Amino acid sequence: MPHITLNSDEPGVRGLFRYRPETARPLNELVDVLLRGPSSLTPGERELIAAQVSSLNQCKYCCSSHSAYAAAQLPGGMDTVEQVRASADSAPVSDKMKALLAIAASVQQGSLNVTDDQVAAARAAGAVDLEIHDTVLIAAVFCMFNRYVDGLATFAPDDPELYASRAQRIVADGYLAMLTESLARAT
Amino acid sequence: MPHITLNSDEPGVRGLFRYRPETARPLNELVDVLLRGPSSLTPGERELIAAQVSSLNQCKYCCSSHSAYAAAQLPGGMDTVEQVRASADSAPVSDKMKALLAIAASVQQGSLNVTDDQVAAARAAGAVDLEIHDTVLIAAVFCMFNRYVDGLATFAPDDPELYASRAQRIVADGYLAMLTESLARAT
Repeated sequence: MPHITLNSDEPGVRGLFRYRPETARPLNELVDVLLRGPSSLTPGERELIAAQVSSLNQCKYCCSSHSAYAAAQLPGGMDTVEQVRASADSAPVSDKMKALLAIAASVQQGSLNVTDDQVAAARAAGAVDLEIHDTVLIAAVFCMFNRYVDGLATFAPDDPELYASRAQRIVADGYLAMLTESLARAT
Repeated sequence: MPHITLNSDEPGVRGLFRYRPETARPLNELVDVLLRGPSSLTPGERELIAAQVSSLNQCKYCCSSHSAYAAAQLPGGMDTVEQVRASADSAPVSDKMKALLAIAASVQQGSLNVTDDQVAAARAAGAVDLEIHDTVLIAAVFCMFNRYVDGLATFAPDDPELYASRAQRIVADGYLAMLTESLARAT
């Protein structure tokens, strides 16, 4: 049961967005630009970083959501996502993604854990500065969302279908559009 | 030296904002509404939560910044901030703030660390749901900023005067206005 009384029965972060639309709007604008805006990393690659960090933080709602969103946009689908979550080093992703996922895992552990060697390895595998920047910020952003969602003890559904069907909407319309629709429904 | 080549010599998160204005804008909108928007917690109390979490994450830039912003808006100024950072339980803040700071410290430790007892204690000390919500979100947001700033190894000045003078501007104008001014200067 959530630590606070929400104003809907929406699960996970969606219930928090409905509860506090003033903060929900910039949070969704942030995620739209960071995960779906113009970038040399594909939306699937960026969702994979979000899924991996949420997995490391054991956040069921965020991990289920962003695993589904990554699977919908990556070669290999959920198989690839699950292999990355089990061990990124042996997963069927590029060497550049392996190096970026290692940086993201260090960000998850703490503010001061990214090493010069990790950054050098990412660069050697072809990562450019903006990709390194966005990897660190995506990892940091999901350390926030995971703490927000589980720090308030929100509910996470079990059914994978719920996350998979939402993935189709996220891919088609994006985060902010879905928030706007959810808030309109609530009034 | 930062892990990536920035396009300015601005310190801490300001250099990252200048580097990536697309993400800087929603991040500053978020902080403005969360730390300075309408709330039954004062801006000083909310900045105190930001300072405490940044201190626990050992993020020099964020801790120096938000300690200065809290000090500028709290009874007792920097003395109060330093006492909270040393030991919130014996610091000259309300019982409600002590309970909320304990929740924030749990959020800093991990997604799943906030306990029912901590929430009950906050409620017993007079905290309402929205204050508990905002405390968790502020703590989560600074777990993000701390990782963003230090994960990319940005520079943090030593001189307390730099942070104190910026505090006056933050109190007067807010985060988004200062970002807009910074980006305009850059073009």
